[in-house]
Amino acid sequence: MERFLRREARDAPESGIVALLNHGRKSGADVMPLWVGEGDLPTPEFIARPAAEALLAGETFYTWQRGIPELREALARYYTRHFDRDFQPQEFIVTGSGMQAIQLALQATAGAGDEVVYLAPAWPNISAAVGIAGGIAVPVQLEHSAEDGWTLDVNRIEAAITPKTKALFINTPSNPTGWTADRQTLAQILDIARRKGVWIIADEIYALYHYAPSRAASFLDIMQSDDRILFVNTFSKNWAMTGWRVGWMKVHPDLQQTFENLVQYSTSGVPQFLQKGCVAALDEGDEFVAGQVARARNARDMVCEIISATGRTRLSPPQGAFYLFFAIDGIADTMAAAFDMVDNARVGLAPGSAFGPGGESFYRLCFNRRVDELEQAAERIAGWIKGN
Amino acid sequence: MERFLRREARDAPESGIVALLNHGRKSGADVMPLWVGEGDLPTPEFIARPAAEALLAGETFYTWQRGIPELREALARYYTRHFDRDFQPQEFIVTGSGMQAIQLALQATAGAGDEVVYLAPAWPNISAAVGIAGGIAVPVQLEHSAEDGWTLDVNRIEAAITPKTKALFINTPSNPTGWTADRQTLAQILDIARRKGVWIIADEIYALYHYAPSRAASFLDIMQSDDRILFVNTFSKNWAMTGWRVGWMKVHPDLQQTFENLVQYSTSGVPQFLQKGCVAALDEGDEFVAGQVARARNARDMVCEIISATGRTRLSPPQGAFYLFFAIDGIADTMAAAFDMVDNARVGLAPGSAFGPGGESFYRLCFNRRVDELEQAAERIAGWIKGN
Repeated sequence: MERFLRREARDAPESGIVALLNHGRKSGADVMPLWVGEGDLPTPEFIARPAAEALLAGETFYTWQRGIPELREALARYYTRHFDRDFQPQEFIVTGSGMQAIQLALQATAGAGDEVVYLAPAWPNISAAVGIAGGIAVPVQLEHSAEDGWTLDVNRIEAAITPKTKALFINTPSNPTGWTADRQTLAQILDIARRKGVWIIADEIYALYHYAPSRAASFLDIMQSDDRILFVNTFSKNWAMTGWRVGWMKVHPDLQQTFENLVQYSTSGVPQFLQKGCVAALDEGDEFVAGQVARARNARDMVCEIISATGRTRLSPPQGAFYLFFAIDGIADTMAAAFDMVDNARVGLAPGSAFGPGGESFYRLCFNRRVDELEQAAERIAGWIKGN
Repeated sequence: MERFLRREARDAPESGIVALLNHGRKSGADVMPLWVGEGDLPTPEFIARPAAEALLAGETFYTWQRGIPELREALARYYTRHFDRDFQPQEFIVTGSGMQAIQLALQATAGAGDEVVYLAPAWPNISAAVGIAGGIAVPVQLEHSAEDGWTLDVNRIEAAITPKTKALFINTPSNPTGWTADRQTLAQILDIARRKGVWIIADEIYALYHYAPSRAASFLDIMQSDDRILFVNTFSKNWAMTGWRVGWMKVHPDLQQTFENLVQYSTSGVPQFLQKGCVAALDEGDEFVAGQVARARNARDMVCEIISATGRTRLSPPQGAFYLFFAIDGIADTMAAAFDMVDNARVGLAPGSAFGPGGESFYRLCFNRRVDELEQAAERIAGWIKGN
């Protein structure tokens, strides 16, 4: 029957990450799950409780398509606190996941036949979402060297832009590489976007997961209010809320109505009772996030040390996000190796081939987890490397 | 800034229903809210409680993109019970709202430049979703007469099909008209779809809201397993769960992976803790639904009687769904009249112009509500009619 479906829908690839995960679900509870981008903690009670109470109190009716006023106000407070200037509720649109924020940003900028430039290796959902809409995702490869880690040559972005290019999708800190743009690099990218008249879709969801004294640099630090930048974000990572499917966009207030319409015609809003928990996350969650980031920094250093000690890996400690993206010398088929590690080392990694051009020889390991468990997982991986 | 957005996104209309609703939100609590398609009851505790408990128990991680196995099994049980034959869990995909089910069905069948034929008047989101994807929504008008109510001439469907037509969107029982296809009409539509090689997207979400001894006729009653039919559905209406944003699709099991991919690249799944409540709705909710339907039948009869008594309306008691779609003689601008009724009669109706061709002179009234409140609302409307 599938052959009767639209080609772009049929061609949407199965996520290489989900393929591993589905295999792992059959493999028993002793597999250490480092394949997906989530931590080991359930949502903290100070966030879950208000949502559960609102649900039981009957806040179960249709609500504002752009998000409840309390949540948009909380987003403005959160941004004002973390990004060093004033923000208004009118700049925020609540979405049904960060993924939906990406989908809506793409719907708003790039359709059939249009091109979207993105930095690769990348989370596979970006290029897949472009493709389903009939667009073309154009990768610009980051480069990796032992000395400098992952680096971007911004000239490659300019070279990739054609008359069909509608948007640059910029993810920093990057999933999976950990590459993090500094302010100068962001300014160069913004300059290109301004000169070429294309949108920037800014995915800065890991901005607080930055292994430096402060958050990562942001387009918010350098932009003018009329720059064409759409920010996509999620509650998933900062507050251990991956299973909630709530995200947001920060856009120019003039675009509120258009994005409300796009929400209306895709999922028609986000449960009000969940939004009550999201308010608590933003208003009361800074300490939780800081603790998670500190734990991830320790985990990163420990995992890098154990895996590097095999002498067979290429890796650079990531500057941001919570993934180690590493290559193993002498192993060609990362998908097959990832399946074998599940079965024989009892560790689940995401194969680099899932992340597109430049990722083929790598594995992604999520280190947002208890350090003792990660130590055990890293030892298992090191053992597997020595045996293969 | 809006002018830099993609045309199809800019052109997506504000929902005429939401426009009224947003006006009404400023108008005070004494406005009787009959504008949107939801009832007056919050989600029953037997559904809300398991979801709240799962949330507090930490079921807050990523989960199966196609839906948790327990929910797909519960869907198969529900269908087996209501549709008189066996169904398998592999036929069901859980989605983030019925609206998302529609969006995914469209993504799978019709892209830029493709045509989708639908029956009008219709819920406005259908044509808007087609338009955002760059497709063309082609209305086939139902006809209304005092003697026969709303009727469909199926020859009009065949005449509307062109080489660009990819799908027929068939909503029965219909929102807003209440028109409900009998089995013979469904067979005629299926015959057209087979001969023309186009998909049917079947929106039968009000199948149990049928004011006859049994549920409405369904394509499930007449189809072969290899017929190209995608069913879209929602938890919203039957179980007072409009605010949950959970729906599902029933598709051929060979299409599971494609729809899992489309979920992955749009919202990446539905909260597991909410799905636990949905299992309870399906397994324990038949009595609740039957009670709601019985109440709606009484409400329908009472509202029709009071409004008809003005002698200035055109209406037919709907066979299914929970809307009265009625016209008032002598009033041209239904949008202006609907705003005026909010302000002066304190009743919120959806203007018929929101429902596209054939709806312009009508109003949609949702009667899924306490009968005494509806009686008061109907009296207010009758009073407004007499004064205008």
